[in-house]
Amino acid sequence: MSSKLKNAKRIEGLDKNVWIEFTKLAADPSVVNLGQGLPDISPPNYVKEELSKVAAIDSLNQYTRGFGHPSLVKALSCLYEKFYQNRINPDKEILVTVGAYGSLFNAIQGLIDEGDEVIVIVPFYDCYEPMVRMAGATPVFIPLRAKPVDGKKWSSSDWTLDPEELASKFNSKTKAIILNTPHNPLGKVFTNSELQVIADLCIKYDALCISDEVYEWLVYTGNKHLKIATFPGMWERTVTIGSAGKTFSVTGWKLGWSIGPKHLIKHLQTVQQNTIYTCATPLQEALAQAFWIDIKRMDDPECYFNSLPKELEVKRDRMVRLLESVGLTPIVPDGGYFIIADVSLLDADFSDMKDSSEPYDYKFVKWMTKNKKLSAIPVSAFCNAETKSQFEKFVRFCFIKKDSTLDAAEAIIKAWKRQAS
Amino acid sequence: MSSKLKNAKRIEGLDKNVWIEFTKLAADPSVVNLGQGLPDISPPNYVKEELSKVAAIDSLNQYTRGFGHPSLVKALSCLYEKFYQNRINPDKEILVTVGAYGSLFNAIQGLIDEGDEVIVIVPFYDCYEPMVRMAGATPVFIPLRAKPVDGKKWSSSDWTLDPEELASKFNSKTKAIILNTPHNPLGKVFTNSELQVIADLCIKYDALCISDEVYEWLVYTGNKHLKIATFPGMWERTVTIGSAGKTFSVTGWKLGWSIGPKHLIKHLQTVQQNTIYTCATPLQEALAQAFWIDIKRMDDPECYFNSLPKELEVKRDRMVRLLESVGLTPIVPDGGYFIIADVSLLDADFSDMKDSSEPYDYKFVKWMTKNKKLSAIPVSAFCNAETKSQFEKFVRFCFIKKDSTLDAAEAIIKAWKRQAS
Ligand SMILES: Cc1ncc(COP(=O)(O)O)c(C=O)c1O
Ligand SMILES: Cc1ncc(COP(=O)(O)O)c(C=O)c1O
Repeated sequence: MSSKLKNAKRIEGLDKNVWIEFTKLAADPSVVNLGQGLPDISPPNYVKEELSKVAAIDSLNQYTRGFGHPSLVKALSCLYEKFYQNRINPDKEILVTVGAYGSLFNAIQGLIDEGDEVIVIVPFYDCYEPMVRMAGATPVFIPLRAKPVDGKKWSSSDWTLDPEELASKFNSKTKAIILNTPHNPLGKVFTNSELQVIADLCIKYDALCISDEVYEWLVYTGNKHLKIATFPGMWERTVTIGSAGKTFSVTGWKLGWSIGPKHLIKHLQTVQQNTIYTCATPLQEALAQAFWIDIKRMDDPECYFNSLPKELEVKRDRMVRLLESVGLTPIVPDGGYFIIADVSLLDADFSDMKDSSEPYDYKFVKWMTKNKKLSAIPVSAFCNAETKSQFEKFVRFCFIKKDSTLDAAEAIIKAWKRQAS
Repeated sequence: MSSKLKNAKRIEGLDKNVWIEFTKLAADPSVVNLGQGLPDISPPNYVKEELSKVAAIDSLNQYTRGFGHPSLVKALSCLYEKFYQNRINPDKEILVTVGAYGSLFNAIQGLIDEGDEVIVIVPFYDCYEPMVRMAGATPVFIPLRAKPVDGKKWSSSDWTLDPEELASKFNSKTKAIILNTPHNPLGKVFTNSELQVIADLCIKYDALCISDEVYEWLVYTGNKHLKIATFPGMWERTVTIGSAGKTFSVTGWKLGWSIGPKHLIKHLQTVQQNTIYTCATPLQEALAQAFWIDIKRMDDPECYFNSLPKELEVKRDRMVRLLESVGLTPIVPDGGYFIIADVSLLDADFSDMKDSSEPYDYKFVKWMTKNKKLSAIPVSAFCNAETKSQFEKFVRFCFIKKDSTLDAAEAIIKAWKRQAS
């Protein structure tokens, strides 16, 4: 093939993707899918109904404002003003994007230059690394490390950053740190003092913070979601990212948003106008209407921001009991809808698997999907090459699933354990 | 402000955008808007109804396959196989994107390197230039030039590329040419011999062709849309781009697609998985269903691909008559839904406008919007800095509008003419 029919250098080596590989595997309808973060519970009826209604209105099927449909940015500013100390300008301090994914991309392309360093906490939502590399920057990794738990339950809060190690990663080339709280895949909810350490370093090194808070509403009893953008000196240097898919259990809508000061958001807007220009109008209008319903009842237990975490906490506790009952020690998540567990104690024989260079968890998940008809996601997919070995005994299960799905997973895991013993 | 709170170099100077500026102007509800390419006719009922139905189905509100929802890529491959000599693999030779805009971005980021040259035909859909610059490449411009018409009607086919001038733009650094047929804003439908000249040069210089064919169905009596990808030797080097917004008059859905050989499409897929990951599921499913309805009746005059151009041809002819009746010489478009005309003959007094460095057409449209309550788009917005002066006497009117909107525009233009004479 001739030399010009080839890829641009910026995407060299960035074609691997864990979702594509493992979604394909789990596509077999006989597989119980606890892999991708994809709810199989019903989204709220009013959310679906709003979309049905909007679809019938001619003008809402045409282009809208590129940086966010007017009614949606208004709803978002009204909602988030309750959580920030400052007012939020709907036109200049908010950008609506194609999912939180699109916000991450816009922030990184708009703010990160070739040669910059970006600090990434391991494990990390897998697109952070290739997105930073596509911008020509260098990701600098720091792992969360487990504290000893002395027989207590193992919680996501036992996994922490070492403040000195974190400080050692910052230098004059550090352009940004990407934070994710509540954390995927660990379920960790960063505490006030943990965020203060990060904030202090950002300010000291004049670095930006890209704060991925897509699971902001999903925190469990005893925990509170905090926004680093509200820490003194942080608003001016933070882009906070949210997701409609995670907020209303409609991952297929692919709408997200970035919130931050005008002097940062305007660069994300410039990226948007040169990549996709505008997001889908009917989805934006339906989302705005759904937000208004819940904004008006924020203190009500019926409000989806309150009811969904309650519903999920029961499912989390069920998953913990299930995994413990077969002798595993899951890391109990304080937030999000994933749970990870060391599965090396489960009996699995993959001596006949071809690609033996793959990490343990990749082999394990492939084997489990094929032989046990249960799928999950290997945690080393959330790691850079150097830290994969630290996490390759863990796999991630998604628990935003109907009871019947969890029943099926339970039956599989229990039968497997019986077989082994 | 500190030095790190600033944009990445790749977007430096790319923040201007004609749509943002002129859409804001036209937002005044008393303005008759013939500006942005935004239908105010109703989209087909079955298109809207499919979306209403899909919204009610839980699983269609969740993530789907990243490179395109399975039912949609299947419909697209079935549709386009009728026009290409080869079969089209729905998984490897098609990518569904956020509008045609997203396809343009993915193609340019996936295939164009820093230092490459990309040939752009002037006037051009305005995002081509900043997208090429964002990839670090150099746009090389070539204008369409008007042939003398000797008293005949002035047609978009009188505007052509000079083959020698075009050849002079190609060299070993030429990575691609961006083609747009039917053309926005001119309405030109490139002929077989015109496309052959381009194809020959692409092959000679081993260059790619990014062929933006979003108005592919909208060609008027006596014209035929041809796909350069079907010319000998071109499939392997062409990415052909389409748009749901333009195909079904639902610009707000922001779904588009790229079709091409696997060895090119895979790089666009890599960009997609590192920018937005996947497009909205409900819109993709509804679009697939709408396509099936029209794929089954392609030879029927009721098929939207046949009925919409018939409906628009009447509107085009009306616009031609209207513009001629006030002494203007519009360029009669052979395709698309825009018409451009030299407006320097219309009486406009903008002696008191502030920014006198703006091109004539910018001032004209601003003045007309404010004083005549009629909006349009300045054609120099579709030009690079050097060619703006060649086109600044022209403005573009969009005619995919209800009769009542066209009536209102007609009343404005006729009253204006009476005042002047
Ligand atoms: C931490 C995190 N960030 C971002 C995303 C992407 O969200 P969206 O679907 O809104 O693009 C996800 C989805 O799983 C996620 O877990
Ligand atoms: C020539 C051309 N290409 C691309 C687009 C963008 O299409 P979409 O809305 O599908 O992104 C347009 C929209 O006006 C256009 O005129």
